[in-house]
Amino acid sequence: LDTVKIERFRRALKASGFQAAVAVSPENTWYLSEAMIDTQKELLERLAVVVWAPDREPIYIVCTNEEVQARKESWIQEVRGYVEYQQSPMQLLADALREVGAASGRVALEKWFLSVAYFEELSRLLPDAEFVDARPLFNQVRAIKTADEIRRLESACGVTDRSIRKAFEAARPGMTEKQVGALLTTELIAGGAQALALQVLAAGVDSESTHQRAREYVLNRGDLMRTDCGGIFDGGYMTDMARTISVGAASQRQRDLYRFMWDEHERLIDMVRPGTACEDIYRSHVESFQRRGWNMLRPHIGHSLGIGPHEFPLVRPGERTTLQPGMCISIEPSHFQPGVGKYHLEDLVLVTEDGPRVLSRTADWSQLFVSGV
Amino acid sequence: LDTVKIERFRRALKASGFQAAVAVSPENTWYLSEAMIDTQKELLERLAVVVWAPDREPIYIVCTNEEVQARKESWIQEVRGYVEYQQSPMQLLADALREVGAASGRVALEKWFLSVAYFEELSRLLPDAEFVDARPLFNQVRAIKTADEIRRLESACGVTDRSIRKAFEAARPGMTEKQVGALLTTELIAGGAQALALQVLAAGVDSESTHQRAREYVLNRGDLMRTDCGGIFDGGYMTDMARTISVGAASQRQRDLYRFMWDEHERLIDMVRPGTACEDIYRSHVESFQRRGWNMLRPHIGHSLGIGPHEFPLVRPGERTTLQPGMCISIEPSHFQPGVGKYHLEDLVLVTEDGPRVLSRTADWSQLFVSGV
Repeated sequence: LDTVKIERFRRALKASGFQAAVAVSPENTWYLSEAMIDTQKELLERLAVVVWAPDREPIYIVCTNEEVQARKESWIQEVRGYVEYQQSPMQLLADALREVGAASGRVALEKWFLSVAYFEELSRLLPDAEFVDARPLFNQVRAIKTADEIRRLESACGVTDRSIRKAFEAARPGMTEKQVGALLTTELIAGGAQALALQVLAAGVDSESTHQRAREYVLNRGDLMRTDCGGIFDGGYMTDMARTISVGAASQRQRDLYRFMWDEHERLIDMVRPGTACEDIYRSHVESFQRRGWNMLRPHIGHSLGIGPHEFPLVRPGERTTLQPGMCISIEPSHFQPGVGKYHLEDLVLVTEDGPRVLSRTADWSQLFVSGV
Repeated sequence: LDTVKIERFRRALKASGFQAAVAVSPENTWYLSEAMIDTQKELLERLAVVVWAPDREPIYIVCTNEEVQARKESWIQEVRGYVEYQQSPMQLLADALREVGAASGRVALEKWFLSVAYFEELSRLLPDAEFVDARPLFNQVRAIKTADEIRRLESACGVTDRSIRKAFEAARPGMTEKQVGALLTTELIAGGAQALALQVLAAGVDSESTHQRAREYVLNRGDLMRTDCGGIFDGGYMTDMARTISVGAASQRQRDLYRFMWDEHERLIDMVRPGTACEDIYRSHVESFQRRGWNMLRPHIGHSLGIGPHEFPLVRPGERTTLQPGMCISIEPSHFQPGVGKYHLEDLVLVTEDGPRVLSRTADWSQLFVSGV
């Protein structure tokens, strides 16, 4: 159990003035309980809920199918079960909120996640409660990673980097994208990933889609190939990394474009320091691309990462949040060059008092890597 | 494109009397558009929406990051993009509903999925619309599979069955659960799965949790081992199958219990016929276990399956829906025997005029399979 994280949430909840906080998303119920109920991700009927009032111990509500696992995995002592299709989790949630004296108070609730159908039921059960979006409360706590979280993320990134390197080293003209993707999956699982997160894998000049999945496309000598992928490790921590290589051979133009992208990537990473505003990194990137005559239209070029794929803060226009030590930020420039293909680089960077520390590199990617040479 | 499915939805929408139907879940937006935007599953900021009014063509709303892919994969001509963090999908949804004349009408909306935060925004934009839960409309259409869907499901089930068989054939005392799980993953991906759905894998006497993930547990000779797993194939179709074996050797007691479970499984499958009520299958199973002195407390023992892991109808108490030809029902008895371990069998059964047709068997599982013998 990451007690530093739990104590930080306890303090933030107390300072918030809310009568209670309610987590209902897989991310935040995992964050507070450290039990990962896999089926809650796919089935809204299996909603898991954590109810926490200041100066009390939390209550964990799960469907009875998952009660054995919840008791085994979670540190929370008070676990309550509802029988799916016979009882509603909203009934148990309303009971718990009454019990902690929050039935007519201000309650921080994940309104960004909870469905309208559940909320209508909850509002009927507790007509006097005022439900406020809990996102700012969770964002504030989750944005700063504990030493334990940083260790988990760095280890997961290491597995991911080695997996990409191995799969890409094995890539040869004549293989399909799907075959390379399967190698990558195998490496990630063998390396300890519990599940795959996203897997983008695309080669050739016609690979513009942001999140293109591996196809039956047969790799040609000299194709640019990229992946943007990750796994889920250690209960809930994710990785999200991008690498671009060339298959079998590389042209000078491909190498030059890679060099520019790498230098730009390094320049952006160097800005990941305490006190820098997220939007300033974004703006700097737009200007850099503009000087090259490229029009950068992406809504963001990076994001915090941990148990969710895009955590607060994002590196986007209008995001004035300044970086603080303990934040983990993915920096991910990308560019599609017609006739050449798509470049994408993404690394996870820890903000420290001493500057940026990249958590996601185990191999040298500073030159365009060419497979099979 | 599965035009049979699309035409069936078109007719159901017209018959429903709604001014429009709105899909927002990954399942239903895929069902209607046949484009799978992977990131919409993890990021509510990337909500994809299909708006459909009777006697009109549908409108598909996605974030601009995914617009290239949406246009490439979907048959829907009218694709509209919003820039994430700068525009809200609710703004484009409200505009589309106004455009089709549904701004003050009854609109079928996925209230079971859409979050409270989005709904509050939509309600402010369209104060005169009446939003009704769209689940019954989608359930009604999705419950009956088209010939194309049955073909996709049968093919995916075949890959899954062969993958389990191969991984379980390779299981030996001394291996860890995780190693067997990794073999299973590799086989599924090599067989064509785009991603893993659930993977339960557990061995030994202490494996009661419903959805236990593979651990570092080292297999002993004579351990009972089960998996309940599946993949995602062909855009959106899932598999969900369970098998139980013994590792290296089996006791007579293990074999006898397996024989009872298999016979019960076959008996339940034989009830999957047109006109049978779902709750009758459930009750029959409860009584069968009771005769053996076992108290069956599970909330359901089966469910429809397709693009969601639990589709309507479920085999549960109170579900009076009667089976119809074209429904695909997973039947899944399970039993935990203290000191022996947990048995779980699950197969997908198509309801036909001529009776049940099992879609998920490529190997003989009628006897307790013993690996490495």
